[in-house]
Amino acid sequence: MRIVVLAGGIGGARFLRGLKQAAPDAEITVIGNTGDDIHLFGLKVCPDLDTVMYTLGGGINEEQGWGRRDESFTVKEELAAYGVGPEWFGLGDRDFATHIVRTQMLGAGYPLSAVTEALCDRWRPGVRLLPMSDDRVETHVAIEVDGERRAVHFQEYWVKLRASVDALAVVPVGAETAKPAPGVLEALAGADLILFPPSNPVVSIGTILAVPGIREAVAAAGAPVVGLSPIVGDAPVRGMADKVLAAVGVESTAAAVARHYGAGLLDGWLVDTVDADAVAEVEAAGIRCRAVPLLMTDPDATAAMAREALTLAEEVRG
Amino acid sequence: MRIVVLAGGIGGARFLRGLKQAAPDAEITVIGNTGDDIHLFGLKVCPDLDTVMYTLGGGINEEQGWGRRDESFTVKEELAAYGVGPEWFGLGDRDFATHIVRTQMLGAGYPLSAVTEALCDRWRPGVRLLPMSDDRVETHVAIEVDGERRAVHFQEYWVKLRASVDALAVVPVGAETAKPAPGVLEALAGADLILFPPSNPVVSIGTILAVPGIREAVAAAGAPVVGLSPIVGDAPVRGMADKVLAAVGVESTAAAVARHYGAGLLDGWLVDTVDADAVAEVEAAGIRCRAVPLLMTDPDATAAMAREALTLAEEVRG
Repeated sequence: MRIVVLAGGIGGARFLRGLKQAAPDAEITVIGNTGDDIHLFGLKVCPDLDTVMYTLGGGINEEQGWGRRDESFTVKEELAAYGVGPEWFGLGDRDFATHIVRTQMLGAGYPLSAVTEALCDRWRPGVRLLPMSDDRVETHVAIEVDGERRAVHFQEYWVKLRASVDALAVVPVGAETAKPAPGVLEALAGADLILFPPSNPVVSIGTILAVPGIREAVAAAGAPVVGLSPIVGDAPVRGMADKVLAAVGVESTAAAVARHYGAGLLDGWLVDTVDADAVAEVEAAGIRCRAVPLLMTDPDATAAMAREALTLAEEVRG
Repeated sequence: MRIVVLAGGIGGARFLRGLKQAAPDAEITVIGNTGDDIHLFGLKVCPDLDTVMYTLGGGINEEQGWGRRDESFTVKEELAAYGVGPEWFGLGDRDFATHIVRTQMLGAGYPLSAVTEALCDRWRPGVRLLPMSDDRVETHVAIEVDGERRAVHFQEYWVKLRASVDALAVVPVGAETAKPAPGVLEALAGADLILFPPSNPVVSIGTILAVPGIREAVAAAGAPVVGLSPIVGDAPVRGMADKVLAAVGVESTAAAVARHYGAGLLDGWLVDTVDADAVAEVEAAGIRCRAVPLLMTDPDATAAMAREALTLAEEVRG
């Protein structure tokens, strides 16, 4: 079975680990969000791709969900001693090596997809990891500072400001002219199943869908498209998805997120058991819906979620 | 007193520390060799500038003479795990930060001289450190490999091959079109004293002199030019200077190095007491010469050497 997953960072990566356990023989292609990529210290950092790669490759800091295990921060301390920031972005020494290799390869002319493949040669994540695009896309968030509207990089909004102010708009700068990376459209067209893990619907999956051609390929795919709600009990399971949902006028409920994707895209939707009320509303919108436990508390619970998604896909397929 | 010093790496840096002790009120400008600069992992590494900066700024690994004290090698280990080399060049985590800052600033359009000044804002070396040029100059060494002549980067010859094969030629690639960095010619013209520390006469001081305008400015300067022999008892005090001296047809003796610079450049030359025989030969070549202890065994011995250089300069000045 060929499964294609549109993934952001921590939530997507953890779900993928469960999916690999639930469907060990599946051929999994991951289309990773690159809208939160950022240049730091002259290096190209791809937080979501790396979180998927480290998580599936056994290098992740499990507690934190991002970054490397057994990490040290010597380089960062030295950069601070030079007065060079930002200090709010936690790049460790092991992580720096990844960004150095990536930046060197990009500088030598390799596209991000080839660089990602080379990095995965080491990590062997057990999935084919594709960036959504080889072109630069950078998610900016409009906020108000001292009465003035200002756009900041998504990482500045998310990591530095911790989404403490309202997001007025979320703009994937560059998306309108970006092309899907090689293999992305082919994977979607050839998929037996397309999954939206419980990643952020706006800044992760929304950004991937903003690359011209990808939303259309998902909608046109013969395969069922099944998603898992990142909202449980009217609040994001992790992160601050409610802030960016508000920016696009979507309520932070499992049903509202399903309607936001819409029946044109989604065939099936899983909500948590605490949101069982939402099932009828989602089904009324033309999307098959089931209420199952959706907390990725451990790998087994996550694998059970993935199995529920596979089951729902079978139901949809009929 | 305004002193200008043409410096390579370890020998130059240690001498400068002694000079600062010997002449605490002098205004010292260092013209640093950049011919051994190298791009590693996409980063610009300036070994000689950094050795001067770290040594005078208190950050040097004293035993080794280069690199940072209390260094760790996490980034390098990770790069090796990605299969990315070279592994023969020992970049530590603290050192990496310097190269990251430098590369970021160069990428933003700052010339190397401005970058060096910014790095020195942290290290406060107590001297004005100027790269010999803002233009790229890269010393290549011609060697014979399997009967074929091949050019390798100086660092490959020096660090990887440890000068274990003969150097057939030493070529400062790019020197012929390089311009002296801002301040270099002005410093030489305004100097009260110009010193050649016991740095490598070919790949350190020779490379600096190869930048058009610098040799001429040294020769034309009103100030005495005094050098210290890096050869003691017919062998280099450290490093493998004999290998590159042979490539330019110069014997590894204190007298031969003085004659190599020549009376057109040098006014005074210090040889070690074991080379007292050389004094007459050097003076016969029109260069005032004294035999004094020239081993930089500790900071006080080094300061004593610097004082001898100042004394010889006074004699020359007459």
